[in-house]
Amino acid sequence: SRSIRLAVIPGDGIGQEVVAQGLKVLSAALPQDVKLETRSYDLGARRWHATGETLPDADLESLKNHDAILLGAIGDPSVPSGVLERGLLLKLRFAFDHYVNLRPSKLFPNTPTPLAGRPDIDFVVVREGTEGPYTGNGGSLRTGTPAEVATEVSVNTAYGVERVVRDAYERADARPRKKLTLVHKNNVLVHAGHLWKNIFDRVGQEYPEVTTDYLHVDAATIFFVTQPERFDVIVTDNLFGDILTDLAAAVTGGIGLAASGNINPSGAFPSMFEPVHGSAPDIAGTGKADPTATVLSVALLLQHLGYEAEAARIETSVAQDLAERTGDTPRTTDEIGDALAARVSG
Amino acid sequence: SRSIRLAVIPGDGIGQEVVAQGLKVLSAALPQDVKLETRSYDLGARRWHATGETLPDADLESLKNHDAILLGAIGDPSVPSGVLERGLLLKLRFAFDHYVNLRPSKLFPNTPTPLAGRPDIDFVVVREGTEGPYTGNGGSLRTGTPAEVATEVSVNTAYGVERVVRDAYERADARPRKKLTLVHKNNVLVHAGHLWKNIFDRVGQEYPEVTTDYLHVDAATIFFVTQPERFDVIVTDNLFGDILTDLAAAVTGGIGLAASGNINPSGAFPSMFEPVHGSAPDIAGTGKADPTATVLSVALLLQHLGYEAEAARIETSVAQDLAERTGDTPRTTDEIGDALAARVSG
Ligand SMILES: CC(C)[C@H](C(=O)O)[C@@H](O)C(=O)O
Ligand SMILES: CC(C)[C@H](C(=O)O)[C@@H](O)C(=O)O
Repeated sequence: SRSIRLAVIPGDGIGQEVVAQGLKVLSAALPQDVKLETRSYDLGARRWHATGETLPDADLESLKNHDAILLGAIGDPSVPSGVLERGLLLKLRFAFDHYVNLRPSKLFPNTPTPLAGRPDIDFVVVREGTEGPYTGNGGSLRTGTPAEVATEVSVNTAYGVERVVRDAYERADARPRKKLTLVHKNNVLVHAGHLWKNIFDRVGQEYPEVTTDYLHVDAATIFFVTQPERFDVIVTDNLFGDILTDLAAAVTGGIGLAASGNINPSGAFPSMFEPVHGSAPDIAGTGKADPTATVLSVALLLQHLGYEAEAARIETSVAQDLAERTGDTPRTTDEIGDALAARVSG
Repeated sequence: SRSIRLAVIPGDGIGQEVVAQGLKVLSAALPQDVKLETRSYDLGARRWHATGETLPDADLESLKNHDAILLGAIGDPSVPSGVLERGLLLKLRFAFDHYVNLRPSKLFPNTPTPLAGRPDIDFVVVREGTEGPYTGNGGSLRTGTPAEVATEVSVNTAYGVERVVRDAYERADARPRKKLTLVHKNNVLVHAGHLWKNIFDRVGQEYPEVTTDYLHVDAATIFFVTQPERFDVIVTDNLFGDILTDLAAAVTGGIGLAASGNINPSGAFPSMFEPVHGSAPDIAGTGKADPTATVLSVALLLQHLGYEAEAARIETSVAQDLAERTGDTPRTTDEIGDALAARVSG
């Protein structure tokens, strides 16, 4: 009989609350014969305050013995900026070589958007996850003095760019519109930009059915709000992808609905699925957190593990739930989770 | 009697057309006793094709003998990406130490915006102009091979950050709302981020009346479309400023209205004023280009040179012109320029 070994990192703030709903829906979605084993990891602000640890080697090793990781949210104002981001979140992405950071954006019917005219939005951002300005290269000299110099180095390799570009072509080729847009800033960041563009053009020759396009990142933000329907699959650098996917979430119903997968396509390490939103300490414990982004991340997780039908069932349930939301009776985190679980099993 | 020595770089594509209108409105706005001397520089794609030059030393020296520079647009698809951007546009910004890249964003009445609900948008982005990932630091190793490594180095100095942060506080202090938001990504780009944040906090102590806020760049893009009214003055890094100001333009009527000033506040070098939009070769020669962004850049130019009343007059004229636009009879570049000049002199 089949089984899924799932590592769970609820994390901070609303992370705990949304992950509980994600697991509820996951159980409801899985076929009877699939055994779900979960193991929870106490990582995040509490652990750091208690022990000073962000992600000890023992936890990292133990996390490896899983088929996937579900993460809620990490971060708290009581922890200095960067400590948990670099010591835990990014450390996981780098240690497990999550080079495909997958972030679908879809404007579901009836979902509020700040955009007038409700354009037809349905695209996927393939954000590189292990290079660019996220590698931690750089430093500071004469720190804190009037003569300080601080650098941040964006590192880009043909190895790293080619694998993510290839993944994006595969995804574009598998979608009906078959369109792939590279977003970079190759008129200013010429070294990295030319590397990306050359590889994008070369790999493209292997995908003759995929239509390609290139946009500078600044221009891309314009199209995200004026013509988001022009996008199908986007491939981009780690930092540009970070910025663009928050904007994409904003125009497709908000960060409460945006799911993501940190994927290692080779399967050498477990992939990790998490909502794009943060720990939102201001609403933690109030029951106001929307678990939908986590539930959609569970769908990405199932898709990644080969449970296509179950993943589709969750997405359909979310679409139906959103379509029937009226806004006049706000539901709690728990109620939304229950409703989604009921639809999924129903 | 007073005089203005103005260097004009019309540049490529619609650059020529919009600059002609900018000069028309400038002449209409200036008091009778001010003598306007203009000198035009042939720089851009044509010159590069003809001579291989982007910005020769002789031109750079000659440009220095001016009170300000008005630039149209630079760039053409026939020139490899980066050549004119780095060899001309950015070279000017760096050579003339344009450390304040000023980009106001205002949603004028009746101007189309992709945002539902027409929020009240009136903020100014103070983008650092001489550091960050724009310095040209970085390079590539084993270029074009599967073992290529390409780097881009963001360089940030206390010297460079403090002067632009101080300028932003001054601008915030002079505005009714007195609010300044720092945008960075200090949870990932920790070295540069901490430098920015520390200086932002320290300089802030000298401006007790200014309310301050900090946002990560990804979160800032969300607020640009969901709550743009929360911003008054924003100070940010060169690259984040590039991205954010295109998005700001998109939500305030489009790139056809976005003005900018590349300012050297010390006066050691001439400041340069230019529309945020590019050379738009697709519509060059059709009369479809909107010269309003250039005209608003002329207003920034006048403000910088101390002609406050004349600058305000241009802004009011633009606001009135926009308020009366109906959209059913599109006007040509020339007609819009004439209408604005008539309002300004009338
Ligand atoms: C929290 C932060 C490190 C992270 C990132 O920048 O990648 C977040 O913004 C995201 O998009 O997942
Ligand atoms: C053309 C390019 C070099 C420039 C920039 O990136 O600064 C442009 O996008 C701008 O915003 O003025």
